[in-house]
Amino acid sequence: MRVSVIGGSTVDDETYDEARELGRLLASRGHTVVCGGYGGVMEAVCRGAKEENGRTVGVLSGDDTDEANDYIDVPVATNMGHARNALVVLNGEAVVAVDGAYGTLSEIAHALVLGRNVVGLCTHDVEGVEEVRTPHEAVERVEAQSDS
Amino acid sequence: MRVSVIGGSTVDDETYDEARELGRLLASRGHTVVCGGYGGVMEAVCRGAKEENGRTVGVLSGDDTDEANDYIDVPVATNMGHARNALVVLNGEAVVAVDGAYGTLSEIAHALVLGRNVVGLCTHDVEGVEEVRTPHEAVERVEAQSDS
Amino acid sequence: MRVSVIGGSTVDDETYDEARELGRLLASRGHTVVCGGYGGVMEAVCRGAKEENGRTVGVLSGDDTDEANDYIDVPVATNMGHARNALVVLNGEAVVAVDGAYGTLSEIAHALVLGRNVVGLCTHDVEGVEEVRTPHEAVERVEAQSDS
Amino acid sequence: MRVSVIGGSTVDDETYDEARELGRLLASRGHTVVCGGYGGVMEAVCRGAKEENGRTVGVLSGDDTDEANDYIDVPVATNMGHARNALVVLNGEAVVAVDGAYGTLSEIAHALVLGRNVVGLCTHDVEGVEEVRTPHEAVERVEAQSDS
Repeated sequence: MRVSVIGGSTVDDETYDEARELGRLLASRGHTVVCGGYGGVMEAVCRGAKEENGRTVGVLSGDDTDEANDYIDVPVATNMGHARNALVVLNGEAVVAVDGAYGTLSEIAHALVLGRNVVGLCTHDVEGVEEVRTPHEAVERVEAQSDS
Repeated sequence: MRVSVIGGSTVDDETYDEARELGRLLASRGHTVVCGGYGGVMEAVCRGAKEENGRTVGVLSGDDTDEANDYIDVPVATNMGHARNALVVLNGEAVVAVDGAYGTLSEIAHALVLGRNVVGLCTHDVEGVEEVRTPHEAVERVEAQSDS
Repeated sequence: MRVSVIGGSTVDDETYDEARELGRLLASRGHTVVCGGYGGVMEAVCRGAKEENGRTVGVLSGDDTDEANDYIDVPVATNMGHARNALVVLNGEAVVAVDGAYGTLSEIAHALVLGRNVVGLCTHDVEGVEEVRTPHEAVERVEAQSDS
Repeated sequence: MRVSVIGGSTVDDETYDEARELGRLLASRGHTVVCGGYGGVMEAVCRGAKEENGRTVGVLSGDDTDEANDYIDVPVATNMGHARNALVVLNGEAVVAVDGAYGTLSEIAHALVLGRNVVGLCTHDVEGVEEVRTPHEAVERVEAQSDS
């Protein structure tokens, strides 16, 4: 399944490691990671995914695919600015939010508009987001929702 | 000034009246209303604005300007779906959120990403949104922020 | 009716005058001008329209409405880059192309995809574009097509 | 290199075979195919690419990745309608146009706006497009331009 992972572009080490672990788990279970393609949580989750030979897609706000992080297999330039946030979650069957600021909040909201299941790891407290405590739990919830 | 007013497409009578009053106040003080162009809060605020001979712009998610509400002077079709939410707030110098569901939440978040001042009337509780209790207070805050 | 006028952002004096005359004629007959909002043909047609108290809408590729030309009543920022070209013609019921380079060609093509009637004044030779010789003839053709 | 291949969604057998051969050649030389993701030339070029174990990306105008053709590895939904045409060519370092109607013409124009090298196989006669006669010649030109 394709899972959109959203989160802040600047993160502390703990959040980075958590997102990286999430990427490893998603890839090891065969899921493709879709994200915004830049740094922070986006880089960490892709880095983890590539450590498990997963596939990563970066839906970029800018027009330059060279600005994607080093762990993106398929960068997609949109040149749409923040409006591309809607596309990041449109392209995942489920969404995991990790930390994040207002950009992440916009993605959570777009995901909920689209009816996507959204799982949250230390992220915004929004009704409709299922909070979990570990990357492992996040992957379990994503898979459980997809079965239902 | 151009003020983006965001809010739910389905509203109860009280919210409708509040948004309409907000439109009247904004127009009577010379502000242009920018909104998503459809029903509910969007219609109410435009209706109020037109009662005071204001100007209204509707940034539509669809491709058919005929679907704009009856009080829109300038409908702008985008055919971008929910990604147009980012454009609604991009086109206001300040933002007032009235009630609303996840679409409104995405617009609040986009507005905060853009650094817009966001005033809230019975809307989502998001850090960075200044809550007010009346349309009059909303207009006062919008104008005060703009002066600063 | 809303008429999208498309054309180059850099023009010679003759083309500028022709676009300005087109704007005057459109406005004097009650039509709203929609354009890309910047310089060259876009500025000239809006300038002409305002000389006849017409209404002008500028669908901007950038995110800054202050960059619209001085004759735009309603600037709409999209921050979509060249993808906004599709929106310029989406928002007119008919299209007049004046001169122009590849950006204009993309707009002609988008207009034809949408089934819009496209009238051309010294512009690209594309099957489906009705060539005319004067601004007056352009307005006549736009109105005739709309009646049919 | 990533090569955007653009062309009509309905094609005759000869054009289909030509696009398929183009896909085989691009993939056999290590290039990734980017296209609009649906039928006709888009399907044919992806089918050919997959026959040579190439990689294919489909930038869809709609919101449903299930509508991508069967030979797309990475579908990217944009829900932007025809405005996505700009994104198809933005995501290739070079562009090959095969046959095609107005949608393809818009993509050619967007590509030329972006300064991409555009090679044409039986497509629109536009200044700036280098016409070639065979898929093999198209790939040669794409590679030669990239070296320069």
